[in-house]
Amino acid sequence: MLRTRAFWQLQFIHQPDSILNMGNCIQGVKDFFCRPKNTNVRVSLPMVCFVWQIAMIILFGVFIRYDEESDTHWSEHRKSHNISSDIENDFYFRYPSFQDVHVMIFVGFGFLMTFLKKYSFGAVGFNFLIAAFGIQWALLMQGWFHSLDHTDGKIKIGVESLINADFCVAGCLIAYGAVLGKVSPVQLLVMTLFGVTLFAVEEFIILTVIHARDAGGSMVIHTFGGYYGLAISWVLYRPHLDQSKRLQGSVYHSDVFAMIGTLFLWMFWPSFNSAITDHGDGQHRAAINTYLALASTVLTTVAISSVFQKKGKLDMVHIQNATLAGGVAVGTAAEFLLTPYGSLIVGFCCGILSTFGYLYISPFMEKRLKIQDTCGVHNLHAMPGVIGGIVGAITAAAASESTYGHEGLINTFDFEGDFKDRTPNIQGGHQAAGICVAIVFGIGGGVLVGIILRLPIWGDPADDNCFDDEVYWELPEDEESIPPILEYNNHMSNKQQEMSESNFSVEQS
Amino acid sequence: MLRTRAFWQLQFIHQPDSILNMGNCIQGVKDFFCRPKNTNVRVSLPMVCFVWQIAMIILFGVFIRYDEESDTHWSEHRKSHNISSDIENDFYFRYPSFQDVHVMIFVGFGFLMTFLKKYSFGAVGFNFLIAAFGIQWALLMQGWFHSLDHTDGKIKIGVESLINADFCVAGCLIAYGAVLGKVSPVQLLVMTLFGVTLFAVEEFIILTVIHARDAGGSMVIHTFGGYYGLAISWVLYRPHLDQSKRLQGSVYHSDVFAMIGTLFLWMFWPSFNSAITDHGDGQHRAAINTYLALASTVLTTVAISSVFQKKGKLDMVHIQNATLAGGVAVGTAAEFLLTPYGSLIVGFCCGILSTFGYLYISPFMEKRLKIQDTCGVHNLHAMPGVIGGIVGAITAAAASESTYGHEGLINTFDFEGDFKDRTPNIQGGHQAAGICVAIVFGIGGGVLVGIILRLPIWGDPADDNCFDDEVYWELPEDEESIPPILEYNNHMSNKQQEMSESNFSVEQS
Amino acid sequence: MLRTRAFWQLQFIHQPDSILNMGNCIQGVKDFFCRPKNTNVRVSLPMVCFVWQIAMIILFGVFIRYDEESDTHWSEHRKSHNISSDIENDFYFRYPSFQDVHVMIFVGFGFLMTFLKKYSFGAVGFNFLIAAFGIQWALLMQGWFHSLDHTDGKIKIGVESLINADFCVAGCLIAYGAVLGKVSPVQLLVMTLFGVTLFAVEEFIILTVIHARDAGGSMVIHTFGGYYGLAISWVLYRPHLDQSKRLQGSVYHSDVFAMIGTLFLWMFWPSFNSAITDHGDGQHRAAINTYLALASTVLTTVAISSVFQKKGKLDMVHIQNATLAGGVAVGTAAEFLLTPYGSLIVGFCCGILSTFGYLYISPFMEKRLKIQDTCGVHNLHAMPGVIGGIVGAITAAAASESTYGHEGLINTFDFEGDFKDRTPNIQGGHQAAGICVAIVFGIGGGVLVGIILRLPIWGDPADDNCFDDEVYWELPEDEESIPPILEYNNHMSNKQQEMSESNFSVEQS
Repeated sequence: MLRTRAFWQLQFIHQPDSILNMGNCIQGVKDFFCRPKNTNVRVSLPMVCFVWQIAMIILFGVFIRYDEESDTHWSEHRKSHNISSDIENDFYFRYPSFQDVHVMIFVGFGFLMTFLKKYSFGAVGFNFLIAAFGIQWALLMQGWFHSLDHTDGKIKIGVESLINADFCVAGCLIAYGAVLGKVSPVQLLVMTLFGVTLFAVEEFIILTVIHARDAGGSMVIHTFGGYYGLAISWVLYRPHLDQSKRLQGSVYHSDVFAMIGTLFLWMFWPSFNSAITDHGDGQHRAAINTYLALASTVLTTVAISSVFQKKGKLDMVHIQNATLAGGVAVGTAAEFLLTPYGSLIVGFCCGILSTFGYLYISPFMEKRLKIQDTCGVHNLHAMPGVIGGIVGAITAAAASESTYGHEGLINTFDFEGDFKDRTPNIQGGHQAAGICVAIVFGIGGGVLVGIILRLPIWGDPADDNCFDDEVYWELPEDEESIPPILEYNNHMSNKQQEMSESNFSVEQS
Repeated sequence: MLRTRAFWQLQFIHQPDSILNMGNCIQGVKDFFCRPKNTNVRVSLPMVCFVWQIAMIILFGVFIRYDEESDTHWSEHRKSHNISSDIENDFYFRYPSFQDVHVMIFVGFGFLMTFLKKYSFGAVGFNFLIAAFGIQWALLMQGWFHSLDHTDGKIKIGVESLINADFCVAGCLIAYGAVLGKVSPVQLLVMTLFGVTLFAVEEFIILTVIHARDAGGSMVIHTFGGYYGLAISWVLYRPHLDQSKRLQGSVYHSDVFAMIGTLFLWMFWPSFNSAITDHGDGQHRAAINTYLALASTVLTTVAISSVFQKKGKLDMVHIQNATLAGGVAVGTAAEFLLTPYGSLIVGFCCGILSTFGYLYISPFMEKRLKIQDTCGVHNLHAMPGVIGGIVGAITAAAASESTYGHEGLINTFDFEGDFKDRTPNIQGGHQAAGICVAIVFGIGGGVLVGIILRLPIWGDPADDNCFDDEVYWELPEDEESIPPILEYNNHMSNKQQEMSESNFSVEQS
Repeated sequence: MLRTRAFWQLQFIHQPDSILNMGNCIQGVKDFFCRPKNTNVRVSLPMVCFVWQIAMIILFGVFIRYDEESDTHWSEHRKSHNISSDIENDFYFRYPSFQDVHVMIFVGFGFLMTFLKKYSFGAVGFNFLIAAFGIQWALLMQGWFHSLDHTDGKIKIGVESLINADFCVAGCLIAYGAVLGKVSPVQLLVMTLFGVTLFAVEEFIILTVIHARDAGGSMVIHTFGGYYGLAISWVLYRPHLDQSKRLQGSVYHSDVFAMIGTLFLWMFWPSFNSAITDHGDGQHRAAINTYLALASTVLTTVAISSVFQKKGKLDMVHIQNATLAGGVAVGTAAEFLLTPYGSLIVGFCCGILSTFGYLYISPFMEKRLKIQDTCGVHNLHAMPGVIGGIVGAITAAAASESTYGHEGLINTFDFEGDFKDRTPNIQGGHQAAGICVAIVFGIGGGVLVGIILRLPIWGDPADDNCFDDEVYWELPEDEESIPPILEYNNHMSNKQQEMSESNFSVEQS
């Protein structure tokens, strides 16, 4: 009740009924919004899945084709382009990185969110569902914006498109982290539909129009994804979420599962940041920088986690999350000459900041800003993403021909075509502009999508029913814990019966 | 008792004792078959492991050598073949895909089967054992049939041989899924020995004699493996398996473990289907097609799973298994010009069919056909494998020089040497013939091997002892769950004693 | 008390107080050493992390730069060195193997050690911490010894440096296995600091001075790491460790977690052994040999595990550990012409030996040699490492131009520059010398570091507090297991009350 009233106030607070003269109408709408929660998704979920998948098939039929390197005409293409060997097919430059990114999306993000004691199915299962839908929609959206072949109106896809689709989905999975346990699968699919759409537009503006560089997506993926999720979470604020408090923690084994996610994200982050950078030195350098930044983050995360707990005990939440912040924060600058010690410094600062975020900023945001951020995406993605954007802008602005070499500078920043007159200084400014675009799209888009998600038709759980797999999953009966007790009860009641009988007999005698 | 009598009837029903005049003999054999189950494998398991491993060493010593690309003469070979760089060694074309396939075999299949509440050790451990044996035997068997160097009578192995060995083992691991929890490790090793042998022959017939194409092994691996397992399970039918019903379900954490298997299979399936396709565009295209088919399958699996449960709740069994069917079903056609939307359509249909399989076909098979299929391999491998074969046949028949290009058509279907006059139409027919061969070998081989596995010497568990790691594993004492109860009992009995004493005293007073 | 006295005796046994005339002083020192254990690391852990990480940043700033293949001048370098394509950047030769090694370090070693019932956080978390520190320190130490550019005094790093850093850390993680659960994170960091330093020196002596070959690090990594850990464990001997006996076993799910580690180590070991071998045939051959040795090990491990247990049941400890011994033991010889059957034989023997180790040698070492080896690193690393060194020495000594080819021999053993006159025979002797160096550094270094770690300032746990995450981690409350019991108790006591009341009433009536 309170929840919907709060929403109501948000919408109509400056519009007194007398002026609008639509009291009855509002009452009707109010009733509509105040219906008790119905988490039955038996119609909506299958329908959305079917209709959207059919739409995908039709759109793929109309638009999507293989690119030259994945087509059977490749051998002719090879000869005409004087490519000496099959090994120069882009597949061999990018496929290993692609698979690493793929693991991050499905196992990394999926298992990172299994930390809740009774939401592991939802974490890994819904992550699976929305990623599977998102990559298809992303291939289309990104294709229309980036790789539409204007001669035949078709989108040509290859391994780089698959990586970009995975990247795009990463933004939506980050947003999922903020609303984990509080939304229905249908809401998640809607969130993904709009998220991918917004992502493609935002990416087009940042990378193509502004011509900012963002290899690992600090701005494009993490800043956007983080604020998108936080804005949705803000609109969907649940004042009575403490009714689900019993399920908001972890258990021992769920924390170990989450470490699987953490480690696969941590290990493969160098592939993430280098996956679509320039062949050769670009990929090489991006991997090295990310490797170093991440290593540095682990140490400062441990330090801050320990120093702020009694007896210096470590908190698993920090180890699971803040250790990854360094990877986010070198995303933009990873392909630049950030230098190895520069990477370490970025990681150093982000480990501290991110852990602080978990200790102080998240509780503050929940209490004061009414943003309930289940996984702390603000500390792991949004904030480090902005830092990454700033680091990128500074590194770009500081670039010079003397350090990069003439050709190196042009290659690294792609100062070609329309942008051949751009200088590093100007590039730095454009990088900074990119951060703003990402934030604006994230918050703006999130608020809009959040309002759509408040419609009471999506089957989201009630406040006392959050973080519970019971709502959307057939759960196995946990025989392990129950039977001993039951058995015992039977056993005991027999004993007691005997006992009381014996008591009787004693008394009777 | 019933189980062995059923078998007996199967064997001897048409041979009345009077005719054979060997009643006594049969009685002796009957006694032999009706002995109570003895699951002690302390002699048989070590013996089989030792003897077979020693045989492998001898056979490897006689037959197996490094191929030219893994031999120290490679640099001379390189020069004489005008290969410009070490990077053109087949290792760099295939090793990343090989490692992905390797992960699917050991972690993918292994963890997918950990879903049972008390059979995780057996799932992941026996999977490990039989795969480790199988890859050695497969190198020999496939070597004899495919890569025997007739100048010196040696088998030359390289990274592609390792992938093929992993593929071969995949067939046996699929079969393991059908009998999971109902057989002993010795039976599994026997099953693998024969399975690999049958596989190599079947593969030789399909790929070399018939000259069908089957990049991802829809026919060769999945159809064969699925029916092989189902036929074995049929012969080993256990009428009283419901005595182990308490252990046939999952628990919460075992389902999360199984998701590790699902996801690693799902993510790396594009590598599986592209691992041994042609360098360049072939690998590239196979990976894209598989990626898309799998994405599509996830959505229809969720849809069907939700629509057939009360309240639209999802069933973990479907998410764990049916989501993979799309990868199976594009196995054959992945390297063809299936087109991106064609892949989506195949995935779409298979998600639906496979989930239906789990809902209706599996229970039907268990009740009517007496096939107990623990992991539902019929729905995940056998049926999608056949579909994959059909899709491959149609796609091949529909191929034309106008879409593939002259060279592309020859490369894709390998219309060279003896087969240089083959047309796509004829190829389509041969693809269809391949499906039949796979089914025949699967069912025929499975029945034969099943009969061998009925011999009462393999140490398989009794009907009330299935799905239980206790039988073949030293289990840790689960102190967590037991002591509180024990403690409590002690505590209670003390209390009761006190109580009854106090009763006494009350009475006496 | 006993523990510190034992140490005391070790140090001062030959120095009677009367001679030294410093009784009071000794008493003071004794008191210092006998203080009750204080596991509070709130000051020491953050301080060590911060100070060391800052030191890393400074040292990286002074010394570490990108190498030519990861620098923006690569395209100029390419042209001047006549490299035809970006694909010949070392990144594409080594990156897939690097990522596999990375997974082994963080997931493989981390999860392998999660088998203890209440030390999973420590296993995977501290593994994460020390590996993240170790790789940074290793880049510096190995850089100073191996890749210092003498023209500008800088260390140039590329993907091969990252692999070597991961290798170096592997040595320390092996050592962690021996002391798992008995040391504080600060001790682990100290152990890693010295371990990496010793490793770099030892590696320099073995690979550069002696010019032994050791592709997979049987000597350099496994022998050194194993003995380093065992020596530390010997110095840190805890006579009353049985006070923590209740926590020294596994539970069902923790064993399944450990299998994740086992399998990722097992699967990626071919990448480990081939990661830094020669481009082309070297990497190819090393991968094949390791693949085969590991397969063979699994069968003999199962055989021995089964034959020594009652009823032939398998022991998870063996499956988790001994199955990996084959990979260790082909480490040195993997790049040589070990031949496929040679690899099988090595794996065969190591599976047997390593399992025997777990059955008999480890208990013997604990009782007689006072070495408490939590993970059995002696059986998995130290012993197979020595065998690997011996196999390498024999294989090298047996090499000849007739089998390797003239060029092949030179390439494989790097008989160039100062070593161009070396013969295989002499090389064999030098390989053997390498084993001795590794053992000496392991034991010597371990004893020294062990003595440092006995200082009572590191926050290590008391004997009755080992193997417990409670000491260094904020643990989630395991609601699952506790409430039913509590609930039950309440319920029962009510019942009893009622019962005794009813008894009373019966009596009274």
